[in-house]
Amino acid sequence: MSTQLEMAMAGIISGEMRKVADDEGLAPETIRDLVAHGKVVIPKNVNHDIRRIKGIGKGLSTKVNTNLGTSDECCDLELEGRKLNAALDAGTDSIMDLSTGGDLDSARAFFLEKSPIMVGAVPIYAVASELAREDRPLEDLSVERLFSSIEKQCRQGVDYITVHCGVNRQSVEFLRGAERIMPCVSRGGSILLYWMEKTRQENPLYEYFDDLLQIAKRYDVVLSLGDGFRPGAIADAIDEPQLAELMVLAHLARRANDWGVQAMIEGPGHVPIEHIKPHVELEKRLTDEAPFYVLGPLPTDIAAGYDHISGAIGGAIAASAGADFLCDVTPAEHLGLPDENDIYLGVIASKLAAHVGDLAKDVKGARDQDRRISLARRNLDWESMIAEALDPELVRIKSHLASDREACTMCGKLCAVKLSRQVLPSRE
Amino acid sequence: MSTQLEMAMAGIISGEMRKVADDEGLAPETIRDLVAHGKVVIPKNVNHDIRRIKGIGKGLSTKVNTNLGTSDECCDLELEGRKLNAALDAGTDSIMDLSTGGDLDSARAFFLEKSPIMVGAVPIYAVASELAREDRPLEDLSVERLFSSIEKQCRQGVDYITVHCGVNRQSVEFLRGAERIMPCVSRGGSILLYWMEKTRQENPLYEYFDDLLQIAKRYDVVLSLGDGFRPGAIADAIDEPQLAELMVLAHLARRANDWGVQAMIEGPGHVPIEHIKPHVELEKRLTDEAPFYVLGPLPTDIAAGYDHISGAIGGAIAASAGADFLCDVTPAEHLGLPDENDIYLGVIASKLAAHVGDLAKDVKGARDQDRRISLARRNLDWESMIAEALDPELVRIKSHLASDREACTMCGKLCAVKLSRQVLPSRE
Repeated sequence: MSTQLEMAMAGIISGEMRKVADDEGLAPETIRDLVAHGKVVIPKNVNHDIRRIKGIGKGLSTKVNTNLGTSDECCDLELEGRKLNAALDAGTDSIMDLSTGGDLDSARAFFLEKSPIMVGAVPIYAVASELAREDRPLEDLSVERLFSSIEKQCRQGVDYITVHCGVNRQSVEFLRGAERIMPCVSRGGSILLYWMEKTRQENPLYEYFDDLLQIAKRYDVVLSLGDGFRPGAIADAIDEPQLAELMVLAHLARRANDWGVQAMIEGPGHVPIEHIKPHVELEKRLTDEAPFYVLGPLPTDIAAGYDHISGAIGGAIAASAGADFLCDVTPAEHLGLPDENDIYLGVIASKLAAHVGDLAKDVKGARDQDRRISLARRNLDWESMIAEALDPELVRIKSHLASDREACTMCGKLCAVKLSRQVLPSRE
Repeated sequence: MSTQLEMAMAGIISGEMRKVADDEGLAPETIRDLVAHGKVVIPKNVNHDIRRIKGIGKGLSTKVNTNLGTSDECCDLELEGRKLNAALDAGTDSIMDLSTGGDLDSARAFFLEKSPIMVGAVPIYAVASELAREDRPLEDLSVERLFSSIEKQCRQGVDYITVHCGVNRQSVEFLRGAERIMPCVSRGGSILLYWMEKTRQENPLYEYFDDLLQIAKRYDVVLSLGDGFRPGAIADAIDEPQLAELMVLAHLARRANDWGVQAMIEGPGHVPIEHIKPHVELEKRLTDEAPFYVLGPLPTDIAAGYDHISGAIGGAIAASAGADFLCDVTPAEHLGLPDENDIYLGVIASKLAAHVGDLAKDVKGARDQDRRISLARRNLDWESMIAEALDPELVRIKSHLASDREACTMCGKLCAVKLSRQVLPSRE
């Protein structure tokens, strides 16, 4: 038995399950049962050493992923190292290597070695990038080459892979009928869509899903079932191709679980605010509560430059409705590749959203943190306020105390906290 | 007849109602009827020239306020001018002068003269600051002095005033029983609470509410019925004192309307994410849809330094549930007085939240903007993407085009938009 799921189904509590239980403050048996039912995944490739093992799914704290990686326009592993450090400083739980520039195997090895946390990848990026570099059209992509690259990347140690298996002939038909503003904004989805249209063949990730399962099982790689047809505009959201694809993914997640392979489902994207909660609930219902990994969601299209804020709005609502894993959105979204500062802000905004979700989910310890910082605030105890803050260092730098060194400069001597505690008792 | 409400109730469409109708793209009759029923307010003091008149309430776009003003710690009208310009650049709809430092009448005159938009104030700040400067305790505040200052500020031209009329003996009793972590975080509320406890008298703003109505009616000042007991911690939210006060405010808003005085209701504050929508709905229900003016809300206590993001999460949810007016929260919240940069970021984050709310409310024109920017994105038309963005100048500076000058550096030659439009048609 090689996968966490197989062990859990056999009643075994693995070392990884114990670490997740410790991390969450829950019983190992609880983690085992959640893994056994496909409601929690533990991304941990048998070939990858991870110092900080995390679980993703029901009952656990909401996790955050950060996308890193080179491109043809910007290929510098030293910069990637700085971006990785910025993401870790801000508290990310996962990184994805989305490199498409330079030596992709080396970039992947770099991230796998440097990262103390789980590493995900989108294997088709590497294959498509290699073809582009050989000056060959995407339609030259062979099924063998695709699966051999997937096998190589999994063998190398990637903990989870995004595979757009739901982009199949049926969901493409729905897409054709949908008349979206932007038919497809997923890079992986668009590569497969292009290949399918040009070659008139079925998506190999769907057609040969069992081969994918064999590879995933060998290394205990979690399949992150990608939403190639996630909406890229508010006007395109929650339509037939998106739902058709989600139904395929739900089916494939069950099939993966039947094989002992861990799976999670990826979600949108651009979604009107009032549809975010119902959509998370739909995903949970359709998939028997498979872990849900969302990108944003972004509740407006107009916020380029501030999409980390837009993503925090959507992410907080999604997480509070049950989403388990937030892919951070940086201020550079829709503008270009993020730099270190963008990465830091993107992770912080996602961590904020995840915490807001955790308060609603009543995840162990979440409400205690808010209570502690509020007690510190009541006591005008600035050191504790700093210690309990989302970003302690920033609070230390930015807090401006009034001349009495007690209140801040906002209210000065008319500080509401000081005034009211002179006349009313407060809770300890 | 001096107030917009009186005119509307008499079937008259004022010049101000016409301007609001133009601004919103609605019929003047619609605005008149909404004003007549107390569902929309038009803050416009008869003594204040406002170049850009705006309405606040049902069916209108969500408005944003920015708090400005001096303090003892930082009293510089030149800086206030720069903060005002930053707020206007970011697109605020309203400012509040919360000055407590220096010559308060001059500061108020400065904002009233410089601002092309509505100006609000919290009259009790000025009275309390003057007492403090005279080295007299707050309990020396006399009812006459309070009302004479309110009259002076209204005569000077303030368009709306926050008056914490709901802090009365009854709601204070609920507060006493509530054992909050922080009993009172509202500055105005805490001043009144302190005064009431020390003098054993009823809140004059409640006891002599009719005198307040007379002043407000004379200058057509909108009463912004302040929530002195808004929660200042997640653990304290949606409790008895908050609801007791809201019920008083609902009653007083009706009474104001009966007198021909416009009124809106102020709301929290720190609120768990899952309670934001129900609380907005409760306010609308209790008050017969009086305009709702919320501060944040903030769905977590831990985000000091990033409270503009926290506020955008709460503000977007509140606005989408029907809140009409968002008081912006800056990154300096809980840390000290904001500088120009904090003000700019606070307004932008609130504008983003307001727009997300407007999409949900289907406010006229909101969805069109998202559609236009998405069409531009589909066409890789960067000039239109800049023009339609929340912050065009930032997008111009920050967008990084790939070497083909078409896609951005994020995907480069593997751009999903480019790939998919080669094989699938898209909507015009």
